[in-house]
Parts: sequence; structure tokens; C-alpha cells
Amino acid sequence: MAFVIIGGDAAGMSAASRAKRNDPSLTVMVLEATQDVSYSACGMPYNIADPIRAMDDLVVRHAEVFREKQGIDLKLGHRVEKIDRGRKQVQGQIAGGREFEVEYDKLLIATGANAPKLYIPGRDLPGVRVIKSLDDGRAIKAYLADRKVRSVLIVGMGYIGLEMAEAFHARGIQVEMSKPRPGLLSWMPEEMSQVVMDELISKGIVLHFGVRLTAIEETAGGLRVIMDKGELLVDMALMGVGIEPNSGIAAEAGLELGPSRAIAVDRTLRASDPDIYAAGDCADAFHVVTGQRVWVPLGLRANRGGYAVGDNVTGRHVELPGIVGSAVFKALDLEVARTGLSLQQAHEAGFNAVENYIQSASRAHAHPGSQTVHVNLVGDKNTGRLLGASMVGKEGVAHRIDSVAVALHAAMTVEEFSQCDFAYAPPFTPVWDPLLTAANQLLKKM
Amino acid sequence: MAFVIIGGDAAGMSAASRAKRNDPSLTVMVLEATQDVSYSACGMPYNIADPIRAMDDLVVRHAEVFREKQGIDLKLGHRVEKIDRGRKQVQGQIAGGREFEVEYDKLLIATGANAPKLYIPGRDLPGVRVIKSLDDGRAIKAYLADRKVRSVLIVGMGYIGLEMAEAFHARGIQVEMSKPRPGLLSWMPEEMSQVVMDELISKGIVLHFGVRLTAIEETAGGLRVIMDKGELLVDMALMGVGIEPNSGIAAEAGLELGPSRAIAVDRTLRASDPDIYAAGDCADAFHVVTGQRVWVPLGLRANRGGYAVGDNVTGRHVELPGIVGSAVFKALDLEVARTGLSLQQAHEAGFNAVENYIQSASRAHAHPGSQTVHVNLVGDKNTGRLLGASMVGKEGVAHRIDSVAVALHAAMTVEEFSQCDFAYAPPFTPVWDPLLTAANQLLKKM
Repeated sequence: MAFVIIGGDAAGMSAASRAKRNDPSLTVMVLEATQDVSYSACGMPYNIADPIRAMDDLVVRHAEVFREKQGIDLKLGHRVEKIDRGRKQVQGQIAGGREFEVEYDKLLIATGANAPKLYIPGRDLPGVRVIKSLDDGRAIKAYLADRKVRSVLIVGMGYIGLEMAEAFHARGIQVEMSKPRPGLLSWMPEEMSQVVMDELISKGIVLHFGVRLTAIEETAGGLRVIMDKGELLVDMALMGVGIEPNSGIAAEAGLELGPSRAIAVDRTLRASDPDIYAAGDCADAFHVVTGQRVWVPLGLRANRGGYAVGDNVTGRHVELPGIVGSAVFKALDLEVARTGLSLQQAHEAGFNAVENYIQSASRAHAHPGSQTVHVNLVGDKNTGRLLGASMVGKEGVAHRIDSVAVALHAAMTVEEFSQCDFAYAPPFTPVWDPLLTAANQLLKKM
Repeated sequence: MAFVIIGGDAAGMSAASRAKRNDPSLTVMVLEATQDVSYSACGMPYNIADPIRAMDDLVVRHAEVFREKQGIDLKLGHRVEKIDRGRKQVQGQIAGGREFEVEYDKLLIATGANAPKLYIPGRDLPGVRVIKSLDDGRAIKAYLADRKVRSVLIVGMGYIGLEMAEAFHARGIQVEMSKPRPGLLSWMPEEMSQVVMDELISKGIVLHFGVRLTAIEETAGGLRVIMDKGELLVDMALMGVGIEPNSGIAAEAGLELGPSRAIAVDRTLRASDPDIYAAGDCADAFHVVTGQRVWVPLGLRANRGGYAVGDNVTGRHVELPGIVGSAVFKALDLEVARTGLSLQQAHEAGFNAVENYIQSASRAHAHPGSQTVHVNLVGDKNTGRLLGASMVGKEGVAHRIDSVAVALHAAMTVEEFSQCDFAYAPPFTPVWDPLLTAANQLLKKM
């Protein structure tokens, strides 16, 4: 049997490895458009922050290992352009121009996501970059190495924008950020987004809210960014205006699409064709809290989805329960995390939702070095159920959020969560963990 | 109605505050034997580590606040010696010798635990200390301030012994530790206890296993510790040989005792007398995983128990689900944590238990500064249920353990836990969190 995989990053290579380990007799072919497989895309901002480290440090496993040690037929520079479901065949172009056709018994689409640029004049100037692939990262790093980049405009203030702000800041580059709407990280309460904003501003990062780019022009020394309100002179611009599922060939093949045009898959990761799976950033998932389809492109889900597909194509039956949307990122010296539903998402999903915001501490009373930990919890007044959390603080945020994630998977009520036996020692937490204090306070509103 | 509380630390003062807030008309009297109330006993090692900070920094709320702001009749230096259940009266002595009697409608016993010394000659020498009360901490700190203490023997290698080892080490004191049996932290697999041992040894701490003290003598300069195998000359000795519930007056009053002679209480914290409650380190609890009574003296449980009693004596009905035994402590530069059952405890509780030990990393592939994270998970082969975890590492342990604690409260299977959606970002975790890797590996044995 031939198992063909389109895309050789997290989901694709996880599926390839798992399937081949489960069934060494299986023919496993991976068609990857670029020259890179199996790398930590999420590590790029931290790599860019360091002028010395090679971008190739982010490669988790090299192509030769997949080929020689694991017996996976890994084809680099093979861009799939069409899926012919009738003939069970994929067609495409090899770097250089030659065409190829490959037949499959089972197909996995693991094409990831694209990072689009704004459709404005000047978007293709060399100083205007996106960050998605390892080649994008290499291009940014080369640009920083070749030019005297003293200032950068980051268009967008999402996770990636904030992580890249830290990277450029670490290299001594003046960072400005812009977005067309007001508000930073609008899924958290204003008090918490203000904490993040204060951190950015305290580090000298300039934030422009409510401005839209209309064009970018090259100047003698750098770029002129023309906005609906004024203009900016910077040496470089990074477009971090979000990503979108790379689902074009799936859509053209008539596969069903879900939210945000991600490929719709069931809990076994199967698309609307019994022989085609999709996993990773190109596919949707079920939200454990709402039961609804969502598109949340994150790394763990891609790896886990790939594993599940590897199992399912080799005769094991694996159904994934879905996601709760847990995410964490660094914003300069802050840890910012979320899981489950924001208040707005909870309302949209039909819950009788209420939230409560508290400030607590990262360490015990009187323990030196304690930092403020900000917690917002969301609950459902009708059922008492815990629905989501967001957290911000200089320490003690990144792993705490997972406790809430587990509670969401277990469909715990706020009261049940409030009674959980958390570990306590003065260097790590107050005797009432910030999450427990938050739950106790939320209970009063429910 | 008169609500009388014996003991003014975590459980006692939590109960007093909660009851008075719920029902301001209630007469709430607290009888505390010492002059200290509401302090963070767990903070003492870290306070002792710092010669400058006053021990009174650890007081969370002062007596005057309880009296004047909260209207609690707080009596210091009142040692209760007898509970007369027939007359619903407690009797005792006031510091100085005068006797007192107080009548109660509802009584809470929150007498905490005692830290006994070994019954050997020399146990009462001034250089031989225990650490339990704030006065114990003050005495140690005064001793260190008054004398040139260059070396200390800590008898016992439990949480407190290890935290005190760090404290003395921080003050430049040579630390030796002893215990009569082999093995450190025997609830974790040997590979993990070796990691802790290596850390202690690397910091110059000398460990004596398999030695029993027979006597301690005063010498010109310090102490001669006589053991069954040889002797040691040190300037000071700390007896950290465990604690025991302070349940004497409860036992004399005929109240039922549970494991380790802790006062047996139901899920409302009521003892075997309908008008008497017990909470904190003197009381037992139900283990959520086994359903059995256990005695696990820890701070969060004391506070939570106190709150619940405050609710129950004022007509709210609160039942606590119980504990899972989550604990974390620092051992020099290591974080050490546990929750749920060890393999041995699981076997003793009748589970068909299996464990799996893994090493993972605290941060993503290629992220600088990553440390090894050691994880051991215990599961039940019959039901698939997750039973417990232990962890060791230089970072990323203290809060991760709580995710397992929540899973234990939810009675999750190892497989359900392995599918939880954890947050990922390179500075904080590999894409597969160490706990998820541990769960995936344990699944293969189940």
C-alpha cells in the first residue's frame, strides 16, 4: 500500500514516521515543496534574536535520517499542484520545472498554512518580509546580517508579531508595531492587555493603533511606509497579519472546507474523501468545550494529528478528542497564555458566560522576587462549567495554564476546579495558587 | 452561638475569618498557645537563609487585624489542655499559669502538628533544634546570629530537611545529612532520586545513609553526634525526622483517630462528635484516588479545610472532595514535585499499577538554556487510570505537576491525559510537553 503525504513539516513527518514504524512494509512517500523538513517554525523568532546561531539549528530531524534510518521516500522540491481523486493521484512540479505524478492508496494533506502579505503596492520589496517557512527566517536573518537595520515596522500585533518584536528588540533594533483596529490581544480583559501594552512600551516599542497601510516605497536608506494616517520611515517591515490554511489544492479537489477555509476533518483526521486525511495547520479540529469545528493552527496539534493519521492508515483506530486552544507566548519579559474560550467566544457559543479578573502573586507571601500574576477565568452560569482562562505575568504563567486545559478536557465545573489539590511551596506559588484564587472569586459571580 | 477554635495558624484563622464574614453575629474565639498567629511556616527555610530579614516577615495577618478589623476574639498564650465534650467546654492554661475555661457550641481543633526530636541523650542541648513553629525559626536564626556556626547535621532527608539544607548552604554553612535507612525520597524511582542526590553532593552536602544517632554531647566548640557507626563533630544539629499530628487532646476526649493518629474527619471536616470539627495538620482527609483516609500535612489543605469549617458552622454545607497529595519543594537548584500515588502506594491500594520513567527537556529543541526534566507516571493497567506522578528538574516542574493533580481529581485515564491540549512555545516546553511524552510512553506499558 502506498501512503503519500503532501508536506514534510510537523504533521507530515510525524505521520510518515508513525506509519512506517507501525508497518515497515508500507510505502511512505513525502512530497515537500521546499528543501526543508521537520523544523521548529515556532523557534524562528528566538533564532533570529541571536545573530550567531544558524537557522538550521531549528531542524529537528534531517532528511537523510528519514530516508536512511526510517525508510521514508522523502522527496524535496516537489510541489503538489493537483489532487486527482478519481485516479487517486497527485500531480505537481519538481523544482526546476519537471512535472511528476504519484499514485496513492491513502493520502495525507499536511500543507500547513500561508502567511499572506497585505495587498498593497511595495509588498514585494526586499525589505518587506513575512515569517512562516524556514526560508522566510533565513531571508530575515540574511537581511539583518547584510544591512544596517536600525528600525522595523511589524504590521500586526498577534503572537508572531509580539515574538518578533522581542527578537528585533534583542538585536537592538527600534521596533514599531501597527494594526488597523484598537486593542491588543482582544481575547483578554482590558486590564490584562494593558499589562502587555505597558511591557512593550516600557521596552521602547512604539504601538500604532487604528492605522492602515496603503503602500510601501523604497527610499535611499530604507522604506517609506505610507499609512492612511501619516507615514513612517523604517529600514524593514515585517507583515504579521495572520496566517491562513494552505487548503487551495484540497478545495480544488472538491474536499469540504471548515472554518477559515481549513480542510474539514473528522475525529480520525479523515477529510470528506475516505482515502484522504488532513492534519496540521491546513486542517480544522473539534473544540472540546463547544463541540464545534474550529481552526487553531498550533504546533502540538500538528504533531498529534500526524501521529493519529499514521495510526489510522495502518489499521489502528485513533480518534482525537479535539483541542481547547491552549497557547502561550513570550512578550518581552512577560509570559502570556490562554486556553479554552474567551468571554466573547463563550457568548458566541451560546453559554451564559461570566468572567472574573484577579491579580495574585507568583510566589508566597514574603518570598522574595514575587511577581504579579494576572488571571481571568470564564465560566458558564447555567452549568457551572469552567470555559476558559487567560493569564499574564513575568513568571509562573506558561505551565499553570495547562492545569486549566486539563480541567477543560475533563469538563470540570469552576467549583470542582477550585477544589483541586495544587502543590504549594513558597518559591513557586502562594498557598492559594493564583488559579485557585481566581476560581474562588469567579464562583461568587456564578 | 459561640464558635471556639483551638489553634491560630492556617486552618484556625481561615475558619475564624470565614465564619465571621459569613455571620458577623457569631461569637468567634481563637485560643492560641503561642504568641503567633497566621504565619507562613513553609517560608521559614527561605527566611533563615537570609540573615537580614526578620522572621516576623512571615506573619500573614497580625493579631490586631483579626481582633479589630474582623471582630475575632483572639486569645494568645492560651494553651488548651482538655476538651470536655459533656459540658461542651475547653479547659487550659494561660501563659504564666492561670487556668481558663471556655464554653463552645461548635468547636474546631486546629492544633497542627508537632516536630518531635529523637529520644536520645542530648536532645535538649541548645544546639539541637527542630523547625515547626515560628519560635523554632526564631531560635535557629538567633543561634546562627550569636554563634559561629560553620557546620550543621540535619537528621532526616525529607522535604523540610532538604529545604533547610538549602537554607544553611546559602549561609555558607557546611551541611551533613543523615538517615537510618538507605535511599532518598523513596517515593520516586531510583533514577530520579539519584538526580536529587547528585545535586546535593555537587553542592558539597555530605549524605550519611544507614546511620542511627545514639546520643549528642556538648563539646568545647559545638556538638559531638554519636552514631551507631562513628561520630561527627558539628556546630549545630537540626532534627527533621518527620512530624506527627498534634491530636493528644482530641484522643483524650475520645474522638476517633485516623491514619498516623490524625483526627478522623468526614468530608465536612466534622470529627466523631457532631459539634467538633478538625482541620489542618492535626486532621486526616480522603485521598481522591483511593477513597481512603490519609494524613498528608500540607498548607493548602489546612487553609481550605479552615474555610470549609467556617462555612459549615455558619449553615452553608460544604463537602471537600479530598486531596491527591500534591507537593513541591526546592532541593538546592532543583524543583521536586509529586502528586497522587507512588508505585508502591498504588500497589498497596490494590491497583494493578505500572510506572514509566522518562527524561525530557524543559524547553524546545534548540532553544537555549533547556534543562532535563525527569518525569515518572504511574497508571493502573486494569482501568487505564492515571494514578500519580513525580518530577524533578531545574525548571518547569513546580507548576507542571498541577496538571496531573487536576487529571487525578477528574479520574482521567492515562490516554485521556495524553490527549490534553497543552500550551506550547519554545521558551517554555518542547512541542510535546514532558508530561505528554511521559503519558505516551506509559501507555505502551498499559
